[in-house]
Amino acid sequence: MDERALLQEVYAIIGREHCLDDCAVIPCGEQFLVATTDMLHETTDFPAGITDWQIGWMSAAVTLSDIASMGATPAVLLLAVGLDDPSRLGEILRGARDCCLEAGGYIAGGDIDHHTELTIVSSGIGMVAPDHIVRRSGARAGDLVCVTGVPGCAQAALNGYHQFDKALMEPRARVREGEVLGRTGATSMMDISDGLAISLYDLLEANSCGYSIDREKIPAPAGVPADEAITLALYGGGDYELLFTVPHDWVAPPGFHYSVIGSVIPDHCVLLDGNVMERKGYEHTWVRGARGPDLPGNGGVQ
Amino acid sequence: MDERALLQEVYAIIGREHCLDDCAVIPCGEQFLVATTDMLHETTDFPAGITDWQIGWMSAAVTLSDIASMGATPAVLLLAVGLDDPSRLGEILRGARDCCLEAGGYIAGGDIDHHTELTIVSSGIGMVAPDHIVRRSGARAGDLVCVTGVPGCAQAALNGYHQFDKALMEPRARVREGEVLGRTGATSMMDISDGLAISLYDLLEANSCGYSIDREKIPAPAGVPADEAITLALYGGGDYELLFTVPHDWVAPPGFHYSVIGSVIPDHCVLLDGNVMERKGYEHTWVRGARGPDLPGNGGVQ
Repeated sequence: MDERALLQEVYAIIGREHCLDDCAVIPCGEQFLVATTDMLHETTDFPAGITDWQIGWMSAAVTLSDIASMGATPAVLLLAVGLDDPSRLGEILRGARDCCLEAGGYIAGGDIDHHTELTIVSSGIGMVAPDHIVRRSGARAGDLVCVTGVPGCAQAALNGYHQFDKALMEPRARVREGEVLGRTGATSMMDISDGLAISLYDLLEANSCGYSIDREKIPAPAGVPADEAITLALYGGGDYELLFTVPHDWVAPPGFHYSVIGSVIPDHCVLLDGNVMERKGYEHTWVRGARGPDLPGNGGVQ
Repeated sequence: MDERALLQEVYAIIGREHCLDDCAVIPCGEQFLVATTDMLHETTDFPAGITDWQIGWMSAAVTLSDIASMGATPAVLLLAVGLDDPSRLGEILRGARDCCLEAGGYIAGGDIDHHTELTIVSSGIGMVAPDHIVRRSGARAGDLVCVTGVPGCAQAALNGYHQFDKALMEPRARVREGEVLGRTGATSMMDISDGLAISLYDLLEANSCGYSIDREKIPAPAGVPADEAITLALYGGGDYELLFTVPHDWVAPPGFHYSVIGSVIPDHCVLLDGNVMERKGYEHTWVRGARGPDLPGNGGVQ
């Protein structure tokens, strides 16, 4: 059963309209709730050498990043933890709590279970004013394509550039940046946890326009040979930066750091220096995704 | 590491106040959101012979039941599914969708992953007016102690009384009953997924009063020898009925089916026919709980 067939089946059962954003969106009074869930397993999702505190931190960060990518403010996190060893729980919870203390929200509950392999499912709820929500759709030809931070750092750590270990193991959810982008008129957004290139293709799926990216404008990990660095920036996964579009005359608020990497074009394709960009990123065997692919629905993944 | 030490550690990290109800409670404009998450594993949580459709149904029902036990109305469900075999996903999603169609809410998203053992984490959000929310705390001496349906049926099926297989494998979340109880002044409530006796002790933990139960008033599975039936009703797990208290002069709305099984007493204890009731239920090795015990937080389990 290939990925496409699986996704088509999911679309048929729960509706494709629930599958296009990083979070589900639920009207609640005068606000929108956004909600997302992410499943992480010890052997497939956590790098070697990571501490339990970092496992907790990362589990919270992937979900807070989904909330950030909608322009929303985190409210609460629920953690379901299948533990191989109960003595690990304390550090995992402390890591998740500390991530919330930095990014926003708090741990409001969860579920504990015994499991042969450590498995953590982090679910989060955020809130956003309807005028400030940002979705994957909404890009318009002429908009600028931008990214926060430096894509490729997490993959650089996996490739042995240990100066980037912290980027890999203690990712920062870009919550403040997401809120600012929501308030200042970003036209579309998602996070790049699956990699920059594949995220551009995810945006493509949600929009009728396309994207033209300039290789030389893409920030890439420092201290890595140039060819490898740009490959990491384009195709590496595990970075929780925001990929977004803004009107061409958008003015960044003071202190807002980002890079313009290209522009939105009328043609429905993704170009890199004028040629079609390879659609490649972190992939599971049989379903797309970074650390557990989309169950459409919402923010399947990240 | 015993259960009590683990729970004390969790309380210290995330706050005991988040650990007393079936759901976390989050103010949202003029409403309260309730949110809960439940982790289920193939070998420990799903009975032999269950179909994938029923696995999906049950995964949704356990979470909808948590929402029901707060008096809330289900809004959305998120499903994180770790699949050993991708061809199972369709039936699992159909089962969860069909449960939502009956009980309320809809599947708004999730996450799909490959995993050696089928693992499903169902997270749900419900909404309730602040005046209508019902918590585990709130019981007052003189109140009546009541239960919906017949406790013990799920355990009866596990004991070989196959007329109860459907109760075990396709539990009904008592959403309509929970809403009615919220609107008509129930003073406290939880579901009895861990068993009736242990749920009375959970209520005890959240209240300063106690409970006096009459064995002969407890409804028990029909067609089972009397002694075994009452044991099933008291100590069996896997029933998603509501245990609740109401003022002694409460009048049930027409068509509302329930049983009065005892009364709330000033003394902080649980009595069965005047003697202290055994604190026994479905237990994991090292943490309390039905199908994955409380990560306090909120509605850990159920």
